Amino acid sequence: MTYTELLTKRIHIASGMEPADTVIKNCRIVNVFTREIIEGDIALSDGVIAGIGQYTGREEIDAHGAYALPGLIDSHIHIESSHVTPEEFSRLLVPHGTTTVIADPHEIVNVCGLTGLSYMLNAAEKAALDIKFMLPSCVPCTEWEHAGAAVTAADMAEPLRDDRILGLGEFMNAPGVIRAVPAVLDKLAAAKAAGKPVDGHAPSLLDRNLTAYASTGIRTDHEAGSVEEVQQRLRLGLYVMLRYGSACTELEELAACVTPENARRFLLCSDDCHPATIMARGSTDASLRVCVERGIDPITAVQMATLNAAECYHLDDRGAIAPGRRGDIVLVDDLQEFRVRRVWIGGKPVAQDGAYLPETARHDISSVMSSVHVKDFSAERLRLRLTSDHVTVMDLHPGTVLSHRSDAYIRRAPDGDFLFDPAADIVKMAVIERHHATGNLAMALVRGYGLDRGAIALTVAHDSHNIIAAGASNDEMAFAVDRLIDMGGGITVVRDGAVLEELPLPVAGLMSDQPVEWVRDRLDAIHRAAFEELHVSRAVDPITTLCFMALPVIPELKLTDMGLFDVIHSRFVPLEAEETAEE
Amino acid sequence: MTYTELLTKRIHIASGMEPADTVIKNCRIVNVFTREIIEGDIALSDGVIAGIGQYTGREEIDAHGAYALPGLIDSHIHIESSHVTPEEFSRLLVPHGTTTVIADPHEIVNVCGLTGLSYMLNAAEKAALDIKFMLPSCVPCTEWEHAGAAVTAADMAEPLRDDRILGLGEFMNAPGVIRAVPAVLDKLAAAKAAGKPVDGHAPSLLDRNLTAYASTGIRTDHEAGSVEEVQQRLRLGLYVMLRYGSACTELEELAACVTPENARRFLLCSDDCHPATIMARGSTDASLRVCVERGIDPITAVQMATLNAAECYHLDDRGAIAPGRRGDIVLVDDLQEFRVRRVWIGGKPVAQDGAYLPETARHDISSVMSSVHVKDFSAERLRLRLTSDHVTVMDLHPGTVLSHRSDAYIRRAPDGDFLFDPAADIVKMAVIERHHATGNLAMALVRGYGLDRGAIALTVAHDSHNIIAAGASNDEMAFAVDRLIDMGGGITVVRDGAVLEELPLPVAGLMSDQPVEWVRDRLDAIHRAAFEELHVSRAVDPITTLCFMALPVIPELKLTDMGLFDVIHSRFVPLEAEETAEE
Repeated sequence: MTYTELLTKRIHIASGMEPADTVIKNCRIVNVFTREIIEGDIALSDGVIAGIGQYTGREEIDAHGAYALPGLIDSHIHIESSHVTPEEFSRLLVPHGTTTVIADPHEIVNVCGLTGLSYMLNAAEKAALDIKFMLPSCVPCTEWEHAGAAVTAADMAEPLRDDRILGLGEFMNAPGVIRAVPAVLDKLAAAKAAGKPVDGHAPSLLDRNLTAYASTGIRTDHEAGSVEEVQQRLRLGLYVMLRYGSACTELEELAACVTPENARRFLLCSDDCHPATIMARGSTDASLRVCVERGIDPITAVQMATLNAAECYHLDDRGAIAPGRRGDIVLVDDLQEFRVRRVWIGGKPVAQDGAYLPETARHDISSVMSSVHVKDFSAERLRLRLTSDHVTVMDLHPGTVLSHRSDAYIRRAPDGDFLFDPAADIVKMAVIERHHATGNLAMALVRGYGLDRGAIALTVAHDSHNIIAAGASNDEMAFAVDRLIDMGGGITVVRDGAVLEELPLPVAGLMSDQPVEWVRDRLDAIHRAAFEELHVSRAVDPITTLCFMALPVIPELKLTDMGLFDVIHSRFVPLEAEETAEE
Repeated sequence: MTYTELLTKRIHIASGMEPADTVIKNCRIVNVFTREIIEGDIALSDGVIAGIGQYTGREEIDAHGAYALPGLIDSHIHIESSHVTPEEFSRLLVPHGTTTVIADPHEIVNVCGLTGLSYMLNAAEKAALDIKFMLPSCVPCTEWEHAGAAVTAADMAEPLRDDRILGLGEFMNAPGVIRAVPAVLDKLAAAKAAGKPVDGHAPSLLDRNLTAYASTGIRTDHEAGSVEEVQQRLRLGLYVMLRYGSACTELEELAACVTPENARRFLLCSDDCHPATIMARGSTDASLRVCVERGIDPITAVQMATLNAAECYHLDDRGAIAPGRRGDIVLVDDLQEFRVRRVWIGGKPVAQDGAYLPETARHDISSVMSSVHVKDFSAERLRLRLTSDHVTVMDLHPGTVLSHRSDAYIRRAPDGDFLFDPAADIVKMAVIERHHATGNLAMALVRGYGLDRGAIALTVAHDSHNIIAAGASNDEMAFAVDRLIDMGGGITVVRDGAVLEELPLPVAGLMSDQPVEWVRDRLDAIHRAAFEELHVSRAVDPITTLCFMALPVIPELKLTDMGLFDVIHSRFVPLEAEETAEE
C-alpha cells in the first residue's frame, strides 16, 4: 500500500466508516498530553492508532478496564551488556512493556567496527522491539589501549545518514571536549552536519566544566549521581536520564529530584543490565514502579518513559496513545505495580502475561564471529621478570568498578616471576590484545579479588574488550586464555587444567547466540564456581570486576594491553614500585 | 571558522579561559527548563550562548537586573498580511522581542507560485528576524477559483528538502483530508517522505472528523475557537496555538484553558496582523501580556512562546537561554507588562527601546513584481443582463468575514443591468482574474457594505488574490480596476473618476516596498476615505471585508473569478433568485 492508501484506510477507520483492523476495547488510556485517564477504545489501522473513542473492529480485544500506556522507551541501553543478541534481547524486554530502546552498540563496535554496527542494525530488524541506535562516539575509548577498531569523525558521516541511527552515542570523552581536542570536536561537528543529537556521558562533571561540555550542544546525560548534579544539568538544558540498571540504580535516590516544574526534562534508562536483573525485576516497568514508590506521580513517571523520550529524540511517531502514532501499547493492571498484561508494537500483539509472542527469527552472526585473534600467546609470556619485591598493586574497591593504586612486598621466584601466596590475596592479571593479533600483552598484580586457585578469563573487558584473565598460576591462566581462544570468545572458569564452567560468546566475544534463560543459567553457574571453587571474594562480582579493570577512564589504576595505567596522572607505570624501576 | 574552531572558542569561553565576545551582565534569567529565575551573566561566543554564570567579555552590557527571556517565537504568521516585505516585517516585529517566526507564505505563493516562495526565502535572509517557512499546502485553496499558481504534491518534494522550510503549512483543506481525496493525501505523503511536520487548520472540527484529521499526523492547530475545541485537540496530541492577531484574538478567551497539566502543548501565534495592530499593541510580547492578564503563570507563558515552539518544530538550537543555544535574548522590565528593552538575535544586538538597530538591506523584488495580468477588461464587462428583479445577494455579517445568502428585489435598467439605489444598500462586486489574463470575471450583489458613491478595488483577495472591486457604478468600478492594473497591484479608493487614496502593493499585489509607517498611514487614509467619502458602513472594515469575500471556504456565499459560489452546497449559483433563472 502507498502511504496515501494507508492514510485513506486510517481516515476511514478514524471516521467510523469502516471497522478497524483491531480494537482494544474498554481501556483506561493514560493521556500523556493532558495528564488525564480517558476511558475508551483504541482503534488500529495497519499498525497505527486511527482513533480513540468508541470503535468496532474486525478483531476486538477486551482490556477489561486495564490501563493503556504508550509503549515504554528505554532511552539509553547497551544490548551487549545482557550478553544476548538483539533478537533475544527483544524477547527479554518486550514482555515488560518496553517497546523502544535507544541502544548504543558501543561494545560491539569497539570489537568489530562498523561491521558490528551493521550486524546490530540487521539483527534489530528481526526483533519486535523497536531498536533505535546511537552511533558509538568513542571507539577506541582512549589512546592508551587497542580496540578492534577505530571510528574517526570522518568515518561517522555515512552511518549518521542512516535513518535507524538517531545520533551520536554517549560522548564519554568529556575530558577531550573540555580540553577542546580537535579530533574529538570533529565528531561533534559530524553530528551537527547530520543534524542529529549527541548523547552525553558526564560523570561527576559540575560547574564550568559541565557548562563547557553542554555548550557544545550535547543533549542528554545519564550519569548524574547527586541532586546537585541533576539540578545543574537541568538548568543547562541537558535532559537527565535517571538510571536503573544492574549495577547503577541512581533512580532510587534521584527520583526525588523530579518535580512538576522540571518533570518534562527527565527520561528513564537502564544503561547496562544483566539478564538476571531484567528477568527478576523487570525493564522500564521496574523503573516506573520505583518512580511511583519514590513519590513521583504515576502519569509523570509514564511521561518520562514515553512522551519525554519521544520529544528528546524527535520520535514524533510514538510516545503517546493518539491518532497517527504507532500502535505501541502496553496494558497494565494499575499505575503502581505496573504489572504488564499485554503489549503491542506497531499494532502487533507481542507479549501477553510475560510471554513473548513472536517467533524469534535470528540474523546470521557469521560477520561478527571469529573475533578472537591472538599472537604468540603462551604461559611463558605470563612470566614476570620483576627486579624488585616491592611492586605496584591494584587494590579492588568492593561494590564499585574503581581500583586504588597501592603497593606491596611480594615473593619472587629466582627468575623474577611473581610467586602466588594465598595469604597475601594478590593475583596476577593479564590483558591480552585479541583483535589484530598484535601480540600485545600486559600484566598487573591485583589485591582483594580473593581467588586462590584456578583462573578466570573473559573477552568482555570494557571498552576495548581484549582478553582479561586473572589466576593463581601462569599455567592456569594460560589454560583459561587458550580455552577462550578455542571457543572464539566468552567467559571461562578453570581449575587444575579443566573447565569448571563457561559461557561461549561467539558474537564478537560479547554475546551468546543462545536463549537468555540459558545465558542467565550459565552466568549463575560461573558465579557459583568462581565463589565456591576458586574462592573469589564475596565482596566483589567475579565477572563484572574483571570487566572494568581494563577501562582506563575509571580511576585509579587500570590495565590495558599496552600496560599498567595510572588514570589520575594519565601515564603508564611500571610494575615495580621503586622509582628506579627498570622496565 | 570551522565548526570545530567555533566549538573550541565556545568551550574556552564557557570554561572562563578566555573572555566572551559579549557578556550581558546582571540578568534575571528565565530558565524554561526548571521554571526558575536565575541571576547571572550570559556569555556569548560567535552568536551562541557559551555559559550562564559569572563571566567577563570584550564587550559587557549591564542588564541592571532586567529579566532575560529566550527570543520569542511566533509559531504561525503570514507576513503578507502586514503588507510589508520580510525585511520590513523584521523591523516591525523584532523590537517587540519576537526573534523567530514560522511563516506560511501562502498568499504570495498563490500569486507567484514557487517563485514567490523563493523571493520570500531570499528576502528573509536580509532580515534580522529569523524567519522559518512552512511550504503552503493548499495552492490554489479550492478548485472553484483560479489562483496565480498551482502547487501539487509532486511540486513539493524539492522545496521540502530545503533546510529553511520546516514542513508543510496549514493544511486548510480539512474536508479533503476527511474525505480522503488522494491528491490531497499525496501532499501529506510528500511531507512524510521529507520527514517534516504538517501544520493544521481545522476550524470548528470536532469529534470523529477531528480524529480523522489528526490521524494523518498533522501536528498543530491554530483555529481552536472554544474550550471544547481546545480540549479535544490537546487530547488528540495536536499542539494548540492560541492566536492573537488583528481580527482573531481567541487567546483572550482561551488562555483559561492553559493548566499546569497541559501547558507544554500550547504555543502562541498571531496568524494575520495589520501593521497598525503590531505598532499599537505589540507582537509576541502582547500575547505574553494577555496570557498573564488572563491568569497564566508568567514562566508558563514564556515557555509557550519559546521552549514549546522549539520542541514542536524541532528547533533545538533555540527556545531557551542555555549553553549551546542561539544568542536570541530579550530583556524585559518585568514579567507582567513584558516591556522590551533590548533584543539580541544570534548574538547581535537588534533592538533597543523600540528601535530596530540593523541597517535594512532589501532583496530585489523584480521577480515578484508585474503580477497583474488582466484581459479584455472594461466598464462594459461589469454590465449585468439580469432576467429578473429578484436576485441573490450576499449579506455581510458585521464583525466577521462570513456572508449570508439572501435575496432582494432590485431596480433594473432596460438592458437588464443593476441600477444602484442608495436606499437599498446594495452594491455591485466584481472579481476579475488577474494572474494569467484569462479574462475571467464574475459579479455579485452585496448588501450591508454601506458604500453609496465611488468604488474600492484591491489585489488582495484571499486566497487567490484576484482583483476584487465594489462600487456604486460600472464606471467608478472600472476606473478603480484600471488604476490597480496601472499601478501593478494594491488598494485604491476612487470617486468621480479620481483617486482619493491608494496604497501601491508592487510585490505580488500583496506587499509594499515601502517602510511600515508609510504603509500604516496609507491604510489609515484608505480607511478614512472609505468611511468618510464613500460612506462605507462603520460596522464593517472596508478593506478586510472585501479581502475575504472571494474566499470560497468561508460560508455562506462567496464570489470567485468563476462565479457566485454557495459554500454550504459547494456549487455555483446564478445571480437571479428564481429557480428558473437562465444565466
